Amino acid sequence: MRIFFATSKRRITVVLTAYLALQKKRLRQVNWFAADAFDRLVPFITGGKMLRGGLVLFGFGMSGKKSTPDAVRLAAGVELIHSALVIHDDIMDQDKLRRGQPTISAQYARLAKTKKLALTQHTGESLALCAGDLGFFIATKLLTEVKFSNRTRGVISLVGDIISEVCVAQMQDVWWGSAPPRAVAGLGPSVYEILSMYKYKTGRYTFSLPLIMGATAGGAAAITLRQLEKLGEYLGIMFQIKDDEIGIFGNEKITGKPVGSDIKENKKTIWQVLLWKQAGPSERRKLKNIFGSERILKKDIGYVRRLIKTRGVSSQVTKYMDSYARRARQLIENMKIAPAYEKILLELIDYNLNREA
Amino acid sequence: MRIFFATSKRRITVVLTAYLALQKKRLRQVNWFAADAFDRLVPFITGGKMLRGGLVLFGFGMSGKKSTPDAVRLAAGVELIHSALVIHDDIMDQDKLRRGQPTISAQYARLAKTKKLALTQHTGESLALCAGDLGFFIATKLLTEVKFSNRTRGVISLVGDIISEVCVAQMQDVWWGSAPPRAVAGLGPSVYEILSMYKYKTGRYTFSLPLIMGATAGGAAAITLRQLEKLGEYLGIMFQIKDDEIGIFGNEKITGKPVGSDIKENKKTIWQVLLWKQAGPSERRKLKNIFGSERILKKDIGYVRRLIKTRGVSSQVTKYMDSYARRARQLIENMKIAPAYEKILLELIDYNLNREA
Repeated sequence: MRIFFATSKRRITVVLTAYLALQKKRLRQVNWFAADAFDRLVPFITGGKMLRGGLVLFGFGMSGKKSTPDAVRLAAGVELIHSALVIHDDIMDQDKLRRGQPTISAQYARLAKTKKLALTQHTGESLALCAGDLGFFIATKLLTEVKFSNRTRGVISLVGDIISEVCVAQMQDVWWGSAPPRAVAGLGPSVYEILSMYKYKTGRYTFSLPLIMGATAGGAAAITLRQLEKLGEYLGIMFQIKDDEIGIFGNEKITGKPVGSDIKENKKTIWQVLLWKQAGPSERRKLKNIFGSERILKKDIGYVRRLIKTRGVSSQVTKYMDSYARRARQLIENMKIAPAYEKILLELIDYNLNREA
Repeated sequence: MRIFFATSKRRITVVLTAYLALQKKRLRQVNWFAADAFDRLVPFITGGKMLRGGLVLFGFGMSGKKSTPDAVRLAAGVELIHSALVIHDDIMDQDKLRRGQPTISAQYARLAKTKKLALTQHTGESLALCAGDLGFFIATKLLTEVKFSNRTRGVISLVGDIISEVCVAQMQDVWWGSAPPRAVAGLGPSVYEILSMYKYKTGRYTFSLPLIMGATAGGAAAITLRQLEKLGEYLGIMFQIKDDEIGIFGNEKITGKPVGSDIKENKKTIWQVLLWKQAGPSERRKLKNIFGSERILKKDIGYVRRLIKTRGVSSQVTKYMDSYARRARQLIENMKIAPAYEKILLELIDYNLNREA
C-alpha cells in the first residue's frame, strides 16, 4: 500500500507542479498576488499525503488498465479541490498550523502584519478565502481539460454531487463547534448524527468519490461502483474517527497540527459525545470549562485523555471501529478484484485502524 | 435592452428555481442545513439583475439561433457562480446588506445569535463561506450537465480561466482596502493599476466571459469572440467605474446597499485615487480620517461628495468614461451583427453611463 501511494503521489506531483506553473505564468499577468499565491499554494498542495489522488489512480488501476495521463490529471484535480477545501477549513477553524507549516490564512495574516496593514487577521482570512476559490477554479479548468467522453463528464458531475454534500456537512460541523458540549440535555448531537456527519464530511468525499472517479474512468461495471461507494463510506468513517482520535491523542511532531486544537474548537466528535455520556456531574462541569476554551493547558488535555481511557470511551470507540472494519472486509471479499488490489484495500483498513498522522 | 434582459431573467429564473429545488431535495438528506441553505440561496440568487446570465443568452442569440434549454442552463450556471462569489465578497467586506436584503453572512450570524451560539460573527462568516462553496459546486454540476460538445467543454474551461483571474484581482482589492489611502506618497495604486484591476475583477468576468460563453455555444467565429472579449473589457471597466460612483453617490433605497460602505471599507477606486491627487494638504488630512473609518457620519460622506465635485474629479472620471464609450462604440460598428443586437449593445453603453443601481 505505501509503495502504491508513494508512487501515485510522485506521479500526481509531477502533473500538478507543471500545471500550477502554467497557471502561475498565465495569472501573473493580472497582478503580483497571483505569482505570490502560487508560491504559497505549490508547497501547500504538494505537501499532503495525496490519499485522495492515490485512490483515483487505485480505482482506475482496478480496471486492469495502465494509468494514463488523463487519469493522473483527474487525480491532480481532486487533490487541488481538496487543498482548496482545507484552506477554507483552516479559516473556519482559525487554525494556524497544517502539514507542519503555517496555514494559508496564517501566512497572509503575517504578510499583512509585516506590511503594516489594518485588520491583519481579517485580511489574512480574506486573502486565503480568495486563494481557496482560486484553487476551485483552476481545478475546474484542469478537470474539464481531461479528455471528455460521456464517462468523464459523469465523473465531474459526481464531483459536484459529493463536494456539495461536504459543504453542507461542514456547515453542521461549524455549527456544532459553536455549540456548548451537550450543555443542555438533548441539545448536542447523538452518536448517530456524528457518524452521519462523518459519512458526508469525510467518507463519501475522501474515499467513495476518488475510488468511483477512477473506476468510472477505467470503465468499471455499475455494481463495482456501488460497492466502492459503500466501501468508501466505511473506510471514510473509520478515517474520521481516527482523525479525531489523533486530534486528541496525537503527537504534534508527527501530525503537523497543534495538539488539542479540536478540544479548543469544541469539535463535536464521537469521542466528545461518548465522553460526555459517561462522565459524572463534577466531571461534566470540568469538561464544560475545557471544551471550547480559548486557553487550553497541557493538564486540561491530559485530563481529557485520562478520562477517555478510564471511562471506557476508548473501548466503546474500538467497537465501532471494529464493526466498520468487519463490514469493509466483507464487502472487499465479495468484490471481483485482482489480488494485488484486494491486498491494498485490506491494508487501507489496517491503516485507518492504526495510523498516527 | 430592458425587455431583452427582463425576458432573459424570467427564463433563467425558471431553470434556476427548478434546478435548485432538485438540489435541495438531494442534499436535504444530508442534514437540516442543506434545506435551510437553499431557502436562503434561492431568493438571494434570483434577486439580482441577472446581467451576466442575460449576456450569455445575448451572445448565443447573436448567432441567429433561437435560445435553447442548454443555453439557458449555461446562463443559470454563470448566475450561480456569480452569487457564490458575491456571498464570499460580502464576507470579505463584512457587508450586512445586499440586494436590499441581509447578506448571507449577516443572516447566518443572526441565526447563530438567536440560537445563542458562541462567536456569532465568525460562525456567520464560516457558514456563509460554506454556502458560497456549495454554490460553486452545484454550478459546476449544472454546467457539466449541459450537453457536451467540444465547444461547450471549451466554454467551461474558459469559466475556470476567467474566474481565476477574478480571484487574484479580488486579492488585490482586499489588500488595497486594508492599506491607507496613499498615506505614503507612491504607496497607493495609480489610476492605471486601478483600471487594470477593474478589467480583471469586473470587465472580463461580467461582460467578456458571458458574451463569449454564449457566442461560443452559438458557434460564433473566432474573430467575433475576440471582438466580444475586448468589448466586454471596455463595458466592464465602465460598469465598475459607475459601480464605484454609486458606492459614493448612490441612494440606498435604489441600490439596496448601505450608503458609504466603500468609503468605510477604504476601497481603492478611481474616485478615491483621483480625489487624493487633487486634494490639498488639509483636505488630505481630513480624508485620511474618513476613508476606512469604522464610524462614518452623513456629513463625512457629504464632504467626500462635495470635494469630488469641486475638485474636478467628476469631470476627470467622465473623460475616462467617454473614452471607453467611444472605443466600445467603434468596436460595435466594426462587428458583423444583426441590427437588433447592435442596438442592445449600444444601449448597454448608455446603461453603463447612466444607471443608478
